[in-house]
Amino acid sequence: MFFASDNAGPAHPKVMEALVAANNGYAMGYGADPIMEEVRAQVRKVFEAPEAAVYLIINGTAANSVLLASMSQPWQTIFCSDCAHIHEDECNAPEFFTQAKLTLVPTTAGKMSADDLRRKIMGEETRGVHGPQRGPLSITQVTEKGTIYSLDEIRALTATAQDFGIKTHLDGARFANALVALDCTPAEMTWKAGIDTVSFGGTKNGALGVEACVIFDPKIAWEFELRRKRGGHLLSKHRYLSAQMQAYLADDLWLDMARSANARCVQLAEGLRGHNAVTFLFEPQANMIFFQMPRREHKRMLDGGAVYYVMGGDPETGDPEAQLTGRLVCDWSMTEAGVNQFLDLLRG
Amino acid sequence: MFFASDNAGPAHPKVMEALVAANNGYAMGYGADPIMEEVRAQVRKVFEAPEAAVYLIINGTAANSVLLASMSQPWQTIFCSDCAHIHEDECNAPEFFTQAKLTLVPTTAGKMSADDLRRKIMGEETRGVHGPQRGPLSITQVTEKGTIYSLDEIRALTATAQDFGIKTHLDGARFANALVALDCTPAEMTWKAGIDTVSFGGTKNGALGVEACVIFDPKIAWEFELRRKRGGHLLSKHRYLSAQMQAYLADDLWLDMARSANARCVQLAEGLRGHNAVTFLFEPQANMIFFQMPRREHKRMLDGGAVYYVMGGDPETGDPEAQLTGRLVCDWSMTEAGVNQFLDLLRG
Amino acid sequence: MFFASDNAGPAHPKVMEALVAANNGYAMGYGADPIMEEVRAQVRKVFEAPEAAVYLIINGTAANSVLLASMSQPWQTIFCSDCAHIHEDECNAPEFFTQAKLTLVPTTAGKMSADDLRRKIMGEETRGVHGPQRGPLSITQVTEKGTIYSLDEIRALTATAQDFGIKTHLDGARFANALVALDCTPAEMTWKAGIDTVSFGGTKNGALGVEACVIFDPKIAWEFELRRKRGGHLLSKHRYLSAQMQAYLADDLWLDMARSANARCVQLAEGLRGHNAVTFLFEPQANMIFFQMPRREHKRMLDGGAVYYVMGGDPETGDPEAQLTGRLVCDWSMTEAGVNQFLDLLRG
Amino acid sequence: MFFASDNAGPAHPKVMEALVAANNGYAMGYGADPIMEEVRAQVRKVFEAPEAAVYLIINGTAANSVLLASMSQPWQTIFCSDCAHIHEDECNAPEFFTQAKLTLVPTTAGKMSADDLRRKIMGEETRGVHGPQRGPLSITQVTEKGTIYSLDEIRALTATAQDFGIKTHLDGARFANALVALDCTPAEMTWKAGIDTVSFGGTKNGALGVEACVIFDPKIAWEFELRRKRGGHLLSKHRYLSAQMQAYLADDLWLDMARSANARCVQLAEGLRGHNAVTFLFEPQANMIFFQMPRREHKRMLDGGAVYYVMGGDPETGDPEAQLTGRLVCDWSMTEAGVNQFLDLLRG
Repeated sequence: MFFASDNAGPAHPKVMEALVAANNGYAMGYGADPIMEEVRAQVRKVFEAPEAAVYLIINGTAANSVLLASMSQPWQTIFCSDCAHIHEDECNAPEFFTQAKLTLVPTTAGKMSADDLRRKIMGEETRGVHGPQRGPLSITQVTEKGTIYSLDEIRALTATAQDFGIKTHLDGARFANALVALDCTPAEMTWKAGIDTVSFGGTKNGALGVEACVIFDPKIAWEFELRRKRGGHLLSKHRYLSAQMQAYLADDLWLDMARSANARCVQLAEGLRGHNAVTFLFEPQANMIFFQMPRREHKRMLDGGAVYYVMGGDPETGDPEAQLTGRLVCDWSMTEAGVNQFLDLLRG
Repeated sequence: MFFASDNAGPAHPKVMEALVAANNGYAMGYGADPIMEEVRAQVRKVFEAPEAAVYLIINGTAANSVLLASMSQPWQTIFCSDCAHIHEDECNAPEFFTQAKLTLVPTTAGKMSADDLRRKIMGEETRGVHGPQRGPLSITQVTEKGTIYSLDEIRALTATAQDFGIKTHLDGARFANALVALDCTPAEMTWKAGIDTVSFGGTKNGALGVEACVIFDPKIAWEFELRRKRGGHLLSKHRYLSAQMQAYLADDLWLDMARSANARCVQLAEGLRGHNAVTFLFEPQANMIFFQMPRREHKRMLDGGAVYYVMGGDPETGDPEAQLTGRLVCDWSMTEAGVNQFLDLLRG
Repeated sequence: MFFASDNAGPAHPKVMEALVAANNGYAMGYGADPIMEEVRAQVRKVFEAPEAAVYLIINGTAANSVLLASMSQPWQTIFCSDCAHIHEDECNAPEFFTQAKLTLVPTTAGKMSADDLRRKIMGEETRGVHGPQRGPLSITQVTEKGTIYSLDEIRALTATAQDFGIKTHLDGARFANALVALDCTPAEMTWKAGIDTVSFGGTKNGALGVEACVIFDPKIAWEFELRRKRGGHLLSKHRYLSAQMQAYLADDLWLDMARSANARCVQLAEGLRGHNAVTFLFEPQANMIFFQMPRREHKRMLDGGAVYYVMGGDPETGDPEAQLTGRLVCDWSMTEAGVNQFLDLLRG
Repeated sequence: MFFASDNAGPAHPKVMEALVAANNGYAMGYGADPIMEEVRAQVRKVFEAPEAAVYLIINGTAANSVLLASMSQPWQTIFCSDCAHIHEDECNAPEFFTQAKLTLVPTTAGKMSADDLRRKIMGEETRGVHGPQRGPLSITQVTEKGTIYSLDEIRALTATAQDFGIKTHLDGARFANALVALDCTPAEMTWKAGIDTVSFGGTKNGALGVEACVIFDPKIAWEFELRRKRGGHLLSKHRYLSAQMQAYLADDLWLDMARSANARCVQLAEGLRGHNAVTFLFEPQANMIFFQMPRREHKRMLDGGAVYYVMGGDPETGDPEAQLTGRLVCDWSMTEAGVNQFLDLLRG
């Protein structure tokens, strides 16, 4: 009954096997390993982007920060949602790498609208040299609230950005979960929809720790490489990143894992819907559920062995009828039985 | 015949086994995994430092940069050798994290003397608010030239630093190789010799990618944690770092690996000594050899399948009698047969 | 009819005379000039703060940035109003100097409430090492909208900050205008109300370019000095800063100038009130007026020679009845006749 | 007998008169004042560079830092002399603004040779992504040791830089003193000799505090403007910078002042040459003298009222025969009588 985070689950055995297989003899370091050659080809094929620059990096914070730094200038402001991971959960890493600031666009169910984005963009750089200049846009897909931008919604955001000459980054920590939910191609969800760079997550979906940074216009590739090194994010024994991504992409393992995680989330949501103490905050669309329930119910679940985050108050102390928010995340390794165990406990 | 770098060799099978074993069910992320509890105890025991703060990080550049940033201020200068890795090989990462600058102390055979250090320290901060202020000292052990500071030499350097109220960091990317060469304890080579923080390397000595940051005075521990996160260096699936370090330290595996690497280096050095075209630049003391040899000989070795770095000129083109420098590094996985093959090729 | 900004007016003749008088023979540089000794005593007396550290700096952006950097850490967020000058008008200078980020507190008439501040503070650092940590609070007095915090309102904000161990900075670019409006002492408006540091403006109120940075707890004074130098803001011929501030404070010149500017603003506001096309956006309290008026009226005023900023649209083009916002600022040198000329033109 | 620094002297009366004259009515701020229009034309004419971008800034540290930041990237290293002001005397301001590091080129009498520069450039960026990349070159003219690069020497340095695609900045804090000593045109000493940007000093030569930043290729002009603002170095009441530079350049006042300062230095050097206790460290070429003399003699001079810096030891305490270094600087306002008074005192 572990629903705390999709970064707390194990790596897929096939990913681990690939790691073991890669641990064989000598290999040139720093990305010059032969597996990386193959990974680059795989990623380009997955994205139908034969010219894309492709790099691996150990986690999402680094992927986002180095990409955004390569797309922006220190006197700019980066547009993102008011609940963006880059704003809330990276301890100023994006500001550290970019030296820029963030402008927060309001959200509904975790999503920015093109109109709000336009309003915020127009609110900046109306002061010439005195104010921050307009920098890139960053979109998170799956959003931090477990919702998903439709392709139309992505296109509307990137079109708005393009109206102002602004490039767009996609924080795809849960890229695979969004993709299988939308049932579209990676190209459709990215460059065909106006996205310029992608943090293509593996860590939350069955890898040990690897993200691909995909840059559709390779003009900024060398800058990215220098910024990655300068951030301490170029790994010497790089083959262990390469091997993870190779196995992750092989035979659509990444899609299978995401489908499984999303399916468990559907199962979980259906079970929750039957429970009259539960209210959904947002309609779950991928592998995450935000819901409200009285404190006493949260407490009963946690006491019973369920593991998940409760927000907005201490589940142990306070008015037992007060509504607190719970977050449930299904990772690839969550089983039907695990979900049923949770739902059985909930039903009491 | 792979002598290019000790970060190009494989991880030790026991380290890999530990990784596989750790890949089991759910574990809290970001360093809250149970293995990390054990690693903390192991490292404290190894260093005889029950109060030390212990953190894991993915590579040496990050370990050095985050530690030095936690020890310095942006208006200071960090004292290090003129061939220090932090100066030459980290693409300004130390400057990025610390916002400080580096003052280079001249070296002989890769080593600073206490007198030269004193001269450089006294040369700084003679200008009040106008000049850089005196920041920490960073020492590399094994040095970048394959030589080793004796305990007396370390003590002389840290004592000099202490005369000016300066803290000392040890870049121990090859800590184990130095330790077995000196045949002393980790405590003797560090805090008993006046060292305040250590980048305790695992990556170059049989891990996939892990370094422990050891902080003897835990007052700066929380700052270190924030700086690590802000640098994108706090891993979510942290157990895979923990498992590496756990296996690395268990049953003195790390010392065994270093002893083996050093032994191969001795074997290699003895063989080279017999070759009249070879001149050693520095007396090898750990697992690295810098030597001079005519270009034609380098070319013959490389053509014959030996892999190592040649510096100071293209080994393919130019005066065949010109002396070029070669660097040979033995990692833990180098075999006696591998060294013999190299020496046989050299003898022609 | 020049109402564009109080930084477009001339310096007071007495300030200029002091500058000329200071231009006599040699004087040690970098703040070691004898006039600075006197200025330090003057400022301490004005603020009833005999221990305060006092420094001069050339403009408000630098004063704010160096003070805030000396009060914060790069992993923190600084709390300020959503229309704060440090957020909107300094091209990321505060972020550059502090390396921190800003958290925007909503405002009514340019002012934060203690409740909103508390909500924002509690919204940060609920994520441990993952999110930004709580940094200082910055309040602007006179606000960017021409309104003034009462002493009670300042005390409520600083008390809220203190509940979380947070220090408070006052951006006093128009300090004098607020002081004479509130008819209180500098001590009452600052340290007696819980303020820790002040950017004490001179530039907008009759100086050529000088602000005093007042630090009530001198523990961070040396850090401030180093950060000022590192920012290129320590002037060699410092006496020309000192002389300005000396004359500014002598014989309450600064208060006289602020009283005059505020009086002209009252005169202007009274005249505007009589005009039925004019709506005040905020009740003017110092020397600035924000008002709405139809485009055709703005156009008529500008064509007639009035100089002021019109926001929210081009005054030349568009629906003549559309309401646009105008900003009128009175500086110390504005005359009664100047205001009357403007009002006469308005009356048509 | 004030020889401590040329930034401790007064401003020229004509500069002060221009300031007073500019203090008249309203003027748009931030560089939009009408005097700046004229200054731009003056500077372009002086440099025979009709396309040059011209900006004013309050001091040399800021001029150097903002210019170099506009010419470099954070992963680069800036080449400069080992006694460069940007290295020794700006408390890491260049590193703060550029985020880059400095590579020190050895000097003789304060001057780099083209050969040494080439050696240093070739020593960097031999490590691909791992090491710092090659950034701009910065030359100081007059050097920090009071010596002057000939036009041939400048051309040799910039040609070397150009061989590697490197741009060159001239730190001209004492530009005028060098120019009149070389008896050449500003164009000959800058863009005709391969210089790309100039910190054109006024502060040390009779202004209150103003430097012009001259950018011959205006492509980086907008970046410079943003960096200047972000550094807190865009002044609101900009006319007071403009007025200084206007008067400084009018009627060759700047050249007259530099000629006078240099002439006093010649007079002083001739006098010192006659004194057998004095040894020159470098042949004085502009307005600065570095000389050695026994401690007892320095002490006698200082006790007698001479004001100048003594380096390498406390002039009050220690072996009376020990040689200490003195630095004497003549500014524009130094009189023949002042020099004679010093020389009389020296003769005893």
